[in-house]
Amino acid sequence: MFERRQPIPIGEAVKKIMEHQLVGVMEQVPIEESYGRFLSGDLVATSDVPHFDRAPYDGFAVRAVDTKESSQNNPTEFEVIDHIGAGMVSNKAVGPNQAVRIMTGAMMPTGTDAVVMFEVAQTHEKNGIPFMTIKRSFKPGENVSFRGEDAKEGEILVKQGTLINPGIQAMLATFGYKNVPVAKKPLIGLFATGTELLEVNENLVPGKIRNSNSHMIAAQIHRVGGAVHYYGKLPDEFDTCFEAVKNALNEVDLLITTGGVSVGDFDYLPAIYEKLGAEVLFNKVAMRPGSVSTVAQYNGKILFGLSGNPSACYVGFELFARPIIRRMLFCEKPHLRKEKAQLEVDFPKANPFTRFVRATVSIESGKLKASPSGLDKSNIIMSLSGANSLMILPGGTRGFEAGTEVDVLLLDDQVGCEWHW
Amino acid sequence: MFERRQPIPIGEAVKKIMEHQLVGVMEQVPIEESYGRFLSGDLVATSDVPHFDRAPYDGFAVRAVDTKESSQNNPTEFEVIDHIGAGMVSNKAVGPNQAVRIMTGAMMPTGTDAVVMFEVAQTHEKNGIPFMTIKRSFKPGENVSFRGEDAKEGEILVKQGTLINPGIQAMLATFGYKNVPVAKKPLIGLFATGTELLEVNENLVPGKIRNSNSHMIAAQIHRVGGAVHYYGKLPDEFDTCFEAVKNALNEVDLLITTGGVSVGDFDYLPAIYEKLGAEVLFNKVAMRPGSVSTVAQYNGKILFGLSGNPSACYVGFELFARPIIRRMLFCEKPHLRKEKAQLEVDFPKANPFTRFVRATVSIESGKLKASPSGLDKSNIIMSLSGANSLMILPGGTRGFEAGTEVDVLLLDDQVGCEWHW
Repeated sequence: MFERRQPIPIGEAVKKIMEHQLVGVMEQVPIEESYGRFLSGDLVATSDVPHFDRAPYDGFAVRAVDTKESSQNNPTEFEVIDHIGAGMVSNKAVGPNQAVRIMTGAMMPTGTDAVVMFEVAQTHEKNGIPFMTIKRSFKPGENVSFRGEDAKEGEILVKQGTLINPGIQAMLATFGYKNVPVAKKPLIGLFATGTELLEVNENLVPGKIRNSNSHMIAAQIHRVGGAVHYYGKLPDEFDTCFEAVKNALNEVDLLITTGGVSVGDFDYLPAIYEKLGAEVLFNKVAMRPGSVSTVAQYNGKILFGLSGNPSACYVGFELFARPIIRRMLFCEKPHLRKEKAQLEVDFPKANPFTRFVRATVSIESGKLKASPSGLDKSNIIMSLSGANSLMILPGGTRGFEAGTEVDVLLLDDQVGCEWHW
Repeated sequence: MFERRQPIPIGEAVKKIMEHQLVGVMEQVPIEESYGRFLSGDLVATSDVPHFDRAPYDGFAVRAVDTKESSQNNPTEFEVIDHIGAGMVSNKAVGPNQAVRIMTGAMMPTGTDAVVMFEVAQTHEKNGIPFMTIKRSFKPGENVSFRGEDAKEGEILVKQGTLINPGIQAMLATFGYKNVPVAKKPLIGLFATGTELLEVNENLVPGKIRNSNSHMIAAQIHRVGGAVHYYGKLPDEFDTCFEAVKNALNEVDLLITTGGVSVGDFDYLPAIYEKLGAEVLFNKVAMRPGSVSTVAQYNGKILFGLSGNPSACYVGFELFARPIIRRMLFCEKPHLRKEKAQLEVDFPKANPFTRFVRATVSIESGKLKASPSGLDKSNIIMSLSGANSLMILPGGTRGFEAGTEVDVLLLDDQVGCEWHW
C-alpha cells in the first residue's frame, strides 16, 4: 500500500552529505562589494600598521632625553622648529631642546621619541620664534604609536572563510586590497512542485495556495551566503519534469526541490532520482518536522528533496543544505550555532522523535531563554516569522517543563558550529 | 591656544539627534528583492490561512459520524469514491460510509470532517471498487487543518519596521505580495578628510596611510540598512571643501564626514559648519573613544562629523548615526541592543569617562561573556574585526575585575533597543 522507509539518525544524514567534498571557488570583487562576503583566503598584513612611528595625540614631538631634568620647579624650554599635520613629514632634524608641533597621526620627526600633549605645554614667543615649556619629564616612547604596534607585515589577521564585517573592511582598505579574494557564491537551483501551487500574483481559488516555500528558501539561501536560480514550478508531466531537473543540474552547484518527496500518490521526485541514476543518500530521517527530507547525489552535485510543508522545508534546508553551502564558502564552522537556553514555558507534547521547534531566543539578565514562536504544526507558516532559532527537543520523552535547559540552533548567527550531532 | 569644549553626556547627545524627526519613505520592491529590507507598514493577512479546510496528512477523508461505532472488534468499511491530491477539488459529495482518498494539503471534500491516516487503514478491492476499513473511531475535526487556523484575514501579523527574514518572505508570498512595501534605504553621503589619506590602490609613503574609515563606515551603513554615496576625500582647500559639502547636502539624507572635527590645527569641519550656518548640536561628548564626535543640523538634514580615529569613528557611527537611520527605516527599536554579560578578564585601565571597548561576546552554557577583542587604543583597527559588541565601562572607576557584570551593545543583532541612555 505505501512504501516503508527506514529513518536514519540526523547526524548520520548530515554526515552522508558532508562526505561530498564540494569545492569552493575564489573570485575577486572590488572592495566596495566585499562587505558581507566570505574571505576565500587568509587575510595577511601586507605592511606593518602603523608603517611609521606616529603621534597618537596633538602636541609637541621632543627628545625624551631633553625632558629628564624637567619638573615643577625646573621647567624646560623648547624651541618649536616645525609644525606638521597628519600626512606631512618634517624634513628638519630635531636637536637638543628643540620640538616640532605635531598633529595626531603625523610621523614622528627624526630624532624625537616622545610627544608632549598640548594640555601640559605652555607656549610663548620670543622675537617671533615659537617656544614651549614643560614642567615634567617624559620617558622615551611616551605617547608614541610605534611602527608595527597594531599589526606586523606577514601576520595572518583573519582566517579564510570569515564573513567580512565592517572591521575587516577597514583592514582590507588598510592593506591595499583594491580587489578582495572572496568565495564565489554557490549557485543553488530551486524548483517547486505541487499541483496546488499558485504563483504570488495569482488569485486564490478553492484547494490551491500560493507558493511560499520558494520565496522562503530563496531568502534562506541568501542568508547563508548563496545565490539562487529559481526555475519555477516543475510541470506535472513526468518526462518534462525529468528533463527540467536534468538540465538544471548542468547549470547549478546544488539543486533544491520542495515537495513531491513523500510517499503520497503524486510524489514523483523519487522516480526522477531513479531515472537519473542518482544515488539516494537517505529518504527518511528520524526527526520532526522534515522526516521525509530526501538527499541524493548525482555527478558530484547534490539534490535536496525537501518537504512541501513550510516548516519541514525550512528545517530541512537549515540542517542539510546550509552546511554544504557554508563549506563551499570556506567556512570552518558550517553548521548552525548550537547553544544552551532555558525553556520558558511548558512544552507538553509527547515526543517520539527528535523535534525541531521554531523558537524565539531572548536574553534576560545575560541568560538565553527560549520559547516556541507559534503553533507547532508543520504547516504553520506564521511561526516562522518570529523564529530566530530552532529548539531541539530530543525524542522519547513525554514533554518538557518550563525551566528545563534545552539546545537551541541560532538562525541569525554568523559564528556557526563545527559539528554538533 | 586650543579651544575648550564642554562635553555633554552620551544620552543627551543621542536625544538631541533623535529630536530631529527625519521621515522614512516607502517604496515598492518585487518580492524577489524584499529579503533583508524593512517593512514600511504592518503586514496584514489578505486572506485566511489556510483559506479552506484541508488534510494535514495523506489518508482518507471521512465523515466522523460514520466511525463512531468502529473498534478493534467492530471494523467499519468505507467505499473509496474519489482520489485527490493537493490542489485538486473533489466534486463528489461524500455520503454515509464513503471516503475520499486524499493527499496532504488537499481540500476536505464536501461532507467530510476527519482524516484517517494511511497507517491505520486497511485497503482492499471488491469488484474493482476500492474500499478501506478502520478499527477505531474519529472525532469530528480530527486530523483536519481548519480554515483560518494559521491566520485570519485582516490580522496584523508583522509590525512596521521589522526586518524581513525568510519566514516573513514566506508570509508575503502567501498573501500575494508580488510587490512589497519597504522602507526606502536612506542615502548617506560620505566624505573622508585628512592630508594623510591615500586611496586603497595607492602605495604607502612615509607619513601617509590608506583611507580605511570610509570603507568601514560604508559597511556599517550597509549593516544598518542604509545606502552609501561616497564622495571621496575632501580637498584641502577650504572654499572647495565648503562647496563640496554644501552640494552633497542637496543629494543625500544624512552626511557623514570622518576626521577634521578635532581641535587640531588642520581640522576645518567646525569652520564649514559655521559658514553653512548649521546648528551644532554638540561637539564634545563625555565618552571614550569618540569624544570629539560633532553633530550639526542644517535644513532638516543631519551632519555627522565623526573622528578620524578608526575606533572613535566606528563607535560614533553606531551610537549617533545608527538610530536615526533605523528610525527612517520605521524601526521601533532603533538603538543597538543592550544586554548584560560577564566580563571574562580583568580590565585594569582607570576610566575617567564612560568607555566603549570593542568586545567579543560569546555564550557559555547559555550565559553571555564578554572580553575585549584586542588592544584598546583608539587607533587600533585590528580589534574591530573581532568585535561583535561594544562593552560599556562606566566612567569614574579604577578598572574592572573579571566576573563583573557589564553592559554590552550587540553589533550584529537586528532586534535593537528602544532607548538605553
